[in-house]
Amino acid sequence: MLLCDIGNSGAKFFDGVRVWKESLLGLEKYRNRQVCYVNVNLRAHAIIKNFAKWVDIAPHAELESDYEGLGVDRKVLCSYFTDGVIVDAGSAITVDIMEQGKHLGGYIYPGIKAMHKAYTSISKALDKEPEFLPPKKIARNTAQAIGYGVLAPLLCDIKSWNKRVYITGGSGKILRHFLRNATYDRLYLFKAMKSIVQRKKLC
Amino acid sequence: MLLCDIGNSGAKFFDGVRVWKESLLGLEKYRNRQVCYVNVNLRAHAIIKNFAKWVDIAPHAELESDYEGLGVDRKVLCSYFTDGVIVDAGSAITVDIMEQGKHLGGYIYPGIKAMHKAYTSISKALDKEPEFLPPKKIARNTAQAIGYGVLAPLLCDIKSWNKRVYITGGSGKILRHFLRNATYDRLYLFKAMKSIVQRKKLC
Repeated sequence: MLLCDIGNSGAKFFDGVRVWKESLLGLEKYRNRQVCYVNVNLRAHAIIKNFAKWVDIAPHAELESDYEGLGVDRKVLCSYFTDGVIVDAGSAITVDIMEQGKHLGGYIYPGIKAMHKAYTSISKALDKEPEFLPPKKIARNTAQAIGYGVLAPLLCDIKSWNKRVYITGGSGKILRHFLRNATYDRLYLFKAMKSIVQRKKLC
Repeated sequence: MLLCDIGNSGAKFFDGVRVWKESLLGLEKYRNRQVCYVNVNLRAHAIIKNFAKWVDIAPHAELESDYEGLGVDRKVLCSYFTDGVIVDAGSAITVDIMEQGKHLGGYIYPGIKAMHKAYTSISKALDKEPEFLPPKKIARNTAQAIGYGVLAPLLCDIKSWNKRVYITGGSGKILRHFLRNATYDRLYLFKAMKSIVQRKKLC
């Protein structure tokens, strides 16, 4: 079974052992393979809609939620957890709150690269590589002031929910580093996908 | 006495009664007036360096701080306060911590417009007008999820300092709305400038 997670900036595949990346154009190579996928990328829809053996997992995910328009990747990911703050740190950082098996809501924060661009769009003086500080240490120069601005407010909010924190996604390790009791697993989304595929016998 | 605050996105003047904006090109009109100013804009340096009657206030501000490269506007603004969290919400949002007359440090967060751009740079699906929610209300659609992502983490950090909060700057009113005990005054920087000008008899 091949799993595929198509995000804003490309696709990731998982074959049960390895994870690898492909561009949207690279999806063509897998046209005749049996692939179970989630996709939030509008441009990718046009490419994969004719791949006869590809199965969209999203409609099979079950999640009790009042959130309108929840991204299908968030829906699948959250359905894997009963309780906690679920963080997916990719090109955007999504934060979702699960309680007793119900999705209470969530929010979207720009990813670390997008935040960096936000600073440079304001002034050349803010075009610095952010220096991330340990919690409670306040910044004392511009690189630290940007590093603090990118991460500390987000970490403050995540902690304020007083729940176990589960982190995944490409920038997840940076967040994990500053959240002592959080659990990080880069495979959470694929594990969630696999669990649905097996339960619903999709592939 | 005319005061002028030159920021990243233009200049603001204050004559003791009114505040008005000028573009950098518009500064030329005031060439022969006596103006006391602060300036963080590199392009503006070249324009005003030949204005003989203009006086830079920044070197006269006194602030005990270990922060390297603190913007001159932040230095002047912070020198006006003895204790508290000082927030200047403009094209960037600066947050500075004052304690017993000492500047402990601070950080920089993108302004609300720059944050909006950060979201749209990630995906068209995130190009929504942010809807700001009251504290503790979690988002239930994309516009709310972006509004929450822009403001709630920042508000969480500001509150976590457990200090009186003083807010100024163009977007300050939005922040003030969600920080019940904060004080907002759009003139804080000009008041700080005036205080230095009078104490040091600069204009």
